[in-house]
Amino acid sequence: MARTIQSLERAAAMLRLLAGGERRLGLSEVAAALGLAKGTAHGILRTLQQEGFVEQDPASGRYQLGAEMLRLGQSYLDVNELRARALVWTDDLARSSGESVHLGVLHQSGVLIVHHVFRPDDSRQVLEVGAMQPLHSTALGKVLAAYDPVAHAEAVEGGREAFTDRTVTGAEEFEAVLDLTRARGWASDIEETWAGVASVAAPIHNRRRMPVGAVGVTGAVERVCDGAELRSRLVAAVRDCARAVSRDLGAGRF
Amino acid sequence: MARTIQSLERAAAMLRLLAGGERRLGLSEVAAALGLAKGTAHGILRTLQQEGFVEQDPASGRYQLGAEMLRLGQSYLDVNELRARALVWTDDLARSSGESVHLGVLHQSGVLIVHHVFRPDDSRQVLEVGAMQPLHSTALGKVLAAYDPVAHAEAVEGGREAFTDRTVTGAEEFEAVLDLTRARGWASDIEETWAGVASVAAPIHNRRRMPVGAVGVTGAVERVCDGAELRSRLVAAVRDCARAVSRDLGAGRF
Repeated sequence: MARTIQSLERAAAMLRLLAGGERRLGLSEVAAALGLAKGTAHGILRTLQQEGFVEQDPASGRYQLGAEMLRLGQSYLDVNELRARALVWTDDLARSSGESVHLGVLHQSGVLIVHHVFRPDDSRQVLEVGAMQPLHSTALGKVLAAYDPVAHAEAVEGGREAFTDRTVTGAEEFEAVLDLTRARGWASDIEETWAGVASVAAPIHNRRRMPVGAVGVTGAVERVCDGAELRSRLVAAVRDCARAVSRDLGAGRF
Repeated sequence: MARTIQSLERAAAMLRLLAGGERRLGLSEVAAALGLAKGTAHGILRTLQQEGFVEQDPASGRYQLGAEMLRLGQSYLDVNELRARALVWTDDLARSSGESVHLGVLHQSGVLIVHHVFRPDDSRQVLEVGAMQPLHSTALGKVLAAYDPVAHAEAVEGGREAFTDRTVTGAEEFEAVLDLTRARGWASDIEETWAGVASVAAPIHNRRRMPVGAVGVTGAVERVCDGAELRSRLVAAVRDCARAVSRDLGAGRF
């Protein structure tokens, strides 16, 4: 009975197109990128514009994402139970660790950041809520790949790009990293995604013992590591936080 | 040639429904709220789910907004020129004023917050990016209504709800507030929206001298006001910030 609707799929592809790469596109470019006739593309853009999902620059006639996307994206955060339960615990973690804290969930083939607590100092920092991180090289991503079978499949099938010369890209080596993650109960990223940056993350489980997300701290490798290893004080603080959020979500203590 | 597309309009209405009020709804509730047959509603929900715009809770079968909305909403922020130009200036304003700073644009019949700098202290604060504020009672909203004819029409035609006993609700009184705003070049909100909270805001113009947004500081009335008046030091800092952002957007100095 219920099948998917072509005009909706095309509209979604258009929004994704405007969310990446060039971001301000003319009608011809949108039509060409999606392989649509100009009239078809115009009908969809016009409807998206009327709904506030797309805006057209009056001067250039180019299209870009509209403000209604931001409003609806914020509503997603408001209804996200994991984020609501984690707010207090992640604040405490940022304070006790002195580093920035990220909460991530699996989305498509990456980690979507659903909460970010700034490092508690006066430095200028950019909010990363809504941004994506790779599964194979970040501490959050490794935790998800180690505990969530869907994330595991995405990470194994994905390209595993080498961001630095420390990124683990080989299939066997990557599985060994996940084995270690499961054995220790936490994952690390020491300059495998960003030069000079290290992070540590642990899994969050819900009342059905399903892995629903990961929480971690990220900071300068000189502060977060002691020589070649993560500082154990930070590992303990991250795991404490993950356990506290899991308990708040109804996970058992054992 | 290009007309609007009914299934897209219905999908947009569904996303808005899931963004407000109950936020987790069953198929029957969605169909009833939008006056659709269940089969029609299911086809749209199924497509939205496939695109990541909607998620279905496996236990209850209820629908809620999906993570893709957050990712796309963030992309809107990345492409927003006003926000990009304002980042540094709003940081400076928060630091110099010691209060939280909001940057807002007209969206539908309200102010959409596109940037929020926390008050620079250690207190716990909730990020309000993506949230809406009323046009008629907040400093940001009054600035938009005073300078942008579309915002003015929305504020005049809107209900002007009394949030506190200081909210200006009468039509003539409201126009007088807007006249004062234009005469002074800034607007205030002293406990007209939230008891105990006051704010001051000024308009941002672009190279075509169009009002494209407003910036303001918000804080406890005891700190922001001196007796019945806004502290002039704060008014000056907000207006300096608005002028700096306007110049960065290409507005002339005169």
